[in-house]
Amino acid sequence: MGWKIIETNQLAPKDIDRQGNKLLTGNGYIGYRGTLEEFNKEQKTATIVAGLYDRVGDQWREPVNLPNGCFVQVVYKGEVLHALTGKVVEHAQSLDLQTAIHERRTLFEAADGIRITVQARRFASLAYRHMICMEYSVTADHECVVDIHTGIDGDVWDLNGPHLRDICPIVKDDVISVCAATCESVVQVAVSEAIVFREAGKLSGEERHTEALKILRKLNQVNIQNGFTFYKFVSHSIGLESNDPLEDSRRICQQAAEIGFDDLLAEHAKRWSERWGDCDIQIEGDDFAQEALRFSMYHLLAIVPTHTATVSIPARGMSGQMYKGAIFWDTEIFMLPFFTHVFPSMARNLLLYRYHTLNGARRKAHEYGYRGAFYAWESQDTGDDACTLFNVTDVFTNRPMRTYFRDKQVHISADIAYAFWKYYTSTGDASIWRDGGAEVVFESARFFLSYIYFNPDKQRYEILDVTGPDEYHERVHNNTFTNRLVAHTFEVCLRVAACLQECFPEKYSELMTVLDFERDLVLISEMLQKLYQPDSNPATAVIPQFDGYLILENVPLKTLLERKLHPHEYLGGGNGLATTTQIIKQADVVLTLYLFDEKYSLETKSRNWEYYESRTEHGSSLSACSYSLIAAEIGKVDWAYKYFMKTATIDLTGDGKEYVGTLYIGGTHPAGNGGAWMSAVFGLCGIHVSENGMSVNPRLPAHWTQVKLSLLFRGQRLLFTLTHASVAIEALSPAETSLPVSINRQNYVLPPTGTLMVPII
Amino acid sequence: MGWKIIETNQLAPKDIDRQGNKLLTGNGYIGYRGTLEEFNKEQKTATIVAGLYDRVGDQWREPVNLPNGCFVQVVYKGEVLHALTGKVVEHAQSLDLQTAIHERRTLFEAADGIRITVQARRFASLAYRHMICMEYSVTADHECVVDIHTGIDGDVWDLNGPHLRDICPIVKDDVISVCAATCESVVQVAVSEAIVFREAGKLSGEERHTEALKILRKLNQVNIQNGFTFYKFVSHSIGLESNDPLEDSRRICQQAAEIGFDDLLAEHAKRWSERWGDCDIQIEGDDFAQEALRFSMYHLLAIVPTHTATVSIPARGMSGQMYKGAIFWDTEIFMLPFFTHVFPSMARNLLLYRYHTLNGARRKAHEYGYRGAFYAWESQDTGDDACTLFNVTDVFTNRPMRTYFRDKQVHISADIAYAFWKYYTSTGDASIWRDGGAEVVFESARFFLSYIYFNPDKQRYEILDVTGPDEYHERVHNNTFTNRLVAHTFEVCLRVAACLQECFPEKYSELMTVLDFERDLVLISEMLQKLYQPDSNPATAVIPQFDGYLILENVPLKTLLERKLHPHEYLGGGNGLATTTQIIKQADVVLTLYLFDEKYSLETKSRNWEYYESRTEHGSSLSACSYSLIAAEIGKVDWAYKYFMKTATIDLTGDGKEYVGTLYIGGTHPAGNGGAWMSAVFGLCGIHVSENGMSVNPRLPAHWTQVKLSLLFRGQRLLFTLTHASVAIEALSPAETSLPVSINRQNYVLPPTGTLMVPII
Repeated sequence: MGWKIIETNQLAPKDIDRQGNKLLTGNGYIGYRGTLEEFNKEQKTATIVAGLYDRVGDQWREPVNLPNGCFVQVVYKGEVLHALTGKVVEHAQSLDLQTAIHERRTLFEAADGIRITVQARRFASLAYRHMICMEYSVTADHECVVDIHTGIDGDVWDLNGPHLRDICPIVKDDVISVCAATCESVVQVAVSEAIVFREAGKLSGEERHTEALKILRKLNQVNIQNGFTFYKFVSHSIGLESNDPLEDSRRICQQAAEIGFDDLLAEHAKRWSERWGDCDIQIEGDDFAQEALRFSMYHLLAIVPTHTATVSIPARGMSGQMYKGAIFWDTEIFMLPFFTHVFPSMARNLLLYRYHTLNGARRKAHEYGYRGAFYAWESQDTGDDACTLFNVTDVFTNRPMRTYFRDKQVHISADIAYAFWKYYTSTGDASIWRDGGAEVVFESARFFLSYIYFNPDKQRYEILDVTGPDEYHERVHNNTFTNRLVAHTFEVCLRVAACLQECFPEKYSELMTVLDFERDLVLISEMLQKLYQPDSNPATAVIPQFDGYLILENVPLKTLLERKLHPHEYLGGGNGLATTTQIIKQADVVLTLYLFDEKYSLETKSRNWEYYESRTEHGSSLSACSYSLIAAEIGKVDWAYKYFMKTATIDLTGDGKEYVGTLYIGGTHPAGNGGAWMSAVFGLCGIHVSENGMSVNPRLPAHWTQVKLSLLFRGQRLLFTLTHASVAIEALSPAETSLPVSINRQNYVLPPTGTLMVPII
Repeated sequence: MGWKIIETNQLAPKDIDRQGNKLLTGNGYIGYRGTLEEFNKEQKTATIVAGLYDRVGDQWREPVNLPNGCFVQVVYKGEVLHALTGKVVEHAQSLDLQTAIHERRTLFEAADGIRITVQARRFASLAYRHMICMEYSVTADHECVVDIHTGIDGDVWDLNGPHLRDICPIVKDDVISVCAATCESVVQVAVSEAIVFREAGKLSGEERHTEALKILRKLNQVNIQNGFTFYKFVSHSIGLESNDPLEDSRRICQQAAEIGFDDLLAEHAKRWSERWGDCDIQIEGDDFAQEALRFSMYHLLAIVPTHTATVSIPARGMSGQMYKGAIFWDTEIFMLPFFTHVFPSMARNLLLYRYHTLNGARRKAHEYGYRGAFYAWESQDTGDDACTLFNVTDVFTNRPMRTYFRDKQVHISADIAYAFWKYYTSTGDASIWRDGGAEVVFESARFFLSYIYFNPDKQRYEILDVTGPDEYHERVHNNTFTNRLVAHTFEVCLRVAACLQECFPEKYSELMTVLDFERDLVLISEMLQKLYQPDSNPATAVIPQFDGYLILENVPLKTLLERKLHPHEYLGGGNGLATTTQIIKQADVVLTLYLFDEKYSLETKSRNWEYYESRTEHGSSLSACSYSLIAAEIGKVDWAYKYFMKTATIDLTGDGKEYVGTLYIGGTHPAGNGGAWMSAVFGLCGIHVSENGMSVNPRLPAHWTQVKLSLLFRGQRLLFTLTHASVAIEALSPAETSLPVSINRQNYVLPPTGTLMVPII
């Protein structure tokens, strides 16, 4: 159970947006929204291809939405059978998480009473990444002929488009194509469709019809009594990786048609099955949590790039052009743990994206007068920052509002260094340093070296004028999160230098010379000694989020929200309601407690969780998981469960924020999905992995009777079986040495093979 | 000519506000608005007494408006003869600048056609500071009787009141009084009136009438054919300086009545005449400029405190409770030059106000985590900051807007040090250091010592997160004005230490010990060497106002103003229209050029004046004079004259801004008045005084045929006579040595006595 997400509601426009996100299919190269075949741009159909961005005029740069090759409409007596406008007797739409197949079945009733069923299955092939394969069937309960229009719709949904120009429908042999070019960099793109009919005899004829932006096959007078089925093989090719996208896409879809739908599906399903074999988490006693957690992992897997290390996962995944298709810290802090612990090669790819965009980060640092690498707040293909200085529109004046996301969220460079280090300690893969990681870490540390100031009166280094995770408080001084993370970057920098020197001495010498880094290494070591870390107030144990935070207005969240004059008014920015109060957007100190778990006592965690929880608006999908993680650790299992479910269901319920100011930010929330995995594994299951080893302190909700999951730790696959009575760890692959493990704060040793079983008293 | 300001307009409410400011009388202890005797709080009558502040609840703390002792109404057949509501045939209201006497003459026509003239003169006595003396006459053109109500009106105009409680009308002997207490500190106040009738026989009876807030003498059935005249002697006493304000005020007004109006007026006029003898500037060829300049000096003299060094001049003078009656940097930078060069003992008083409020400045520094003296942005009696964190209301949401005037305009402490040093170099009075000046300077320097950061990457000290004079750009880094002024504070600190050690070694030792200052002196010296001073762009010679200023949107002022959606919207603050552009509120770099005249070349001044002039909104009355001063220096005499007239006429025309957001800020503009004097003397007359000596480079407007003025320079009175053909300097008092003078960049020597006359080629 728990594998199939089924929607049977009658469709309303709001459902269509939600299901478009929720039922998305993808293979890390293409993402296709969970819309119906008869839909067009009004219903937000989208085919997003990884790493292809475009900018029109002075609008925002964003991903390109390719022509929609999955387009099919059935016409009965001149009327399109459309789920939104037709009479729908039954409708079901589903996503099989196990196989990543989208399916729909709709029973229409026509004006004359005849009932026609449309059924379709599709998947973005994990074996052939350019392909979306579809099976499409139409059946009537009486004798009946329909026209079927299938083809490629180049009239696409855009937020800041149109991004495609020279759109050209082409017919050649049995393949139809739409090719076009992007506006900014004139990248050629092509979408092609090959088609196979199961019962070709039922076809009385096929016309090819081209319009300005569209190409269709018009299958005329198809007899659908007893059913009519065909297969669409849609291929997508872009000039970033192909010298002739049109020809390549034609060839690819023809080859797929030759393989045939069933074999393609089998190969695709097999690959997904292997993935699930590695990562599935089985929860007994809680079907909804089971579904939500698998749903979260599915969404991460559907969009993770495996074909290249030059792209990463955007904040809204592949669900559209929202947030400019940009990569934020979401990836490093909230998505990477899943990949690092389960699919380290995918994590490695995602990390090396930051190496491929290092020059963009250098350019940004230089632009602001700093040295090293100041990573983009919103990173696209080049690493240059897509974030604008005016990122929100004031709902009261309709004017652009100056925000400091781009300028002041300097923690991004430290987040990246943190993720590299976590990857290294979890996998033991030192080659990441040789292959780009060291350069990323060195340049990030160097950026902070040039950003930090010395306070001569207090004899300490301080980090001034930054914005932490809580974006409602911009331009603050000594943000606890940032200061802690920058110190960590400095530590990592020193350790990576040592590691590189030991393991790859030539690379070390090369980098020291090329980067002229030796003097800076000394400075970094000195700065680290005197870098100020805000202390907790001795009386309350509360750590101030930044200098002066605790003297801001201490207003209840409810009161603050009652002050709103407009439902979408932005709480941060220049005059935002939250900026002058202690109300925060998202976990900031509490996230610090999680990231630096070993540096804070349980008492400190408990006090700060209590303090900040009531002051957090959770205006970001990144917030809930931190509160879940710390709640689990301090023994508040109910809260941990509540926040786990909040993050795990964000795209199931579709209750996430859709507007900030006047800006549409709907879409999927892969960081929330990653947060669900973290909350489940690190939080409720209490599995902590650090460079010092592993600890397990389960905090299972009362109704969870058992959890089974597997992780990789330094190359060894471990299977955990947790109940309220025991913890069992089985080594699925042999290790070189025994592994010390702390279980419920008692020390044990996991032998190189076999199982360690510890009862919980 | 040029001494009398006469208004003959028929009164409208707006005129009443303007004339209330313009025709204000005062003696530095009391300020009385230029309203008519029959007016009440609706017409903004106000009697402001220096140094008395009060706060009600959580409203703004502001000056107390005393009961109005100048109240008189004439009642004819049951109707009050009121300039706003009655039929006025003729009306004239005037202020004699030479004698500081306010006069009004109004010819009323009653319903029955009878014509009654009301005539009154009053002055705030310069000889007896508690006194306002008034002569009041009523005359009819036919046989006629009226009732006259004269007395004290305790129902006063308040912005954030009511400030008086326990208001109690009292009659004793022939004196009537209103006494009351302030709310916050329960300071007793009393206003008493003694009265003398010129023709007592015409009185048929006098009743004393008391209401809750008011006490009146009702003179019944007075025959006014051929006139009826009486004299009011109104005294004001407050518990800050009197143990029994009621008794003191009774005694004082009785004594005044015994002296009599004519003798009081003669003594008062004599003292004003002496003042003018010292400071008058005679401009030939420009009557309006002559009037405006005298008007400006009059307003400074009417409000300068001479009775104590514990008060200073508020930004809106004594014209009401606007701007909380607070003292800003206006006094030190824009008013003090007049006093320093003409009335040094007054300047000394004003400066020592900062010594008396030093502990408040220390408390503010401590509050923000700094050491030394961080002076109040809005200073009242204790030196604690009256400035709130929310100083403007957002016109779009009606919410308070967070502003950083209080937190970030750190230049205030440097402005004060600057003024002390200017006073010292102009007067040679080293005793100011002994008497408090050194402590002020040391503690101000120490504040900056604790505020400044070191940039290890650039190896320099920087001043971060400040707001300069241009308040539209808050929280900027390395504001040129602030950095320059702080360096100057450091220099002054070192020189004052040296001077004190030499002249007053005991005081020096005492301060070093009490303040524990020796180590800080060394640090200040080190910091001064490496304190960053923003450079001009080599290509354009433009000095950036702060880090990043030149990359802000470069929009014409007109375009920016066209973007306004509300006439009173604040251009600064969180989302202000100007904040993200190069449009500035007021002179900032250009003020720096004036204050540090000798550090910048003419070329630099010229380039920066051109650049910033077109980008300045002049949203502050402090702005015009800086543009006038530099315009004169770079030879733009027309512009210098234009900006001189703008600042000199601000309270003549009443065209100043009256609202910021929803905040009423009307009132007089003494900094504008001081700016007029600076523009005339330092700008158009080109007289520069520095520690290195004196230079004269006149830039007289073409139509000014001659200017005569006198200044004190290190105790010696010098008379300047400037024409387009020559510069003459006469030593009016003998000096110990000859004085080197540069005239039109040629060096001369002014002998200890006698005249130096230099023709201009």
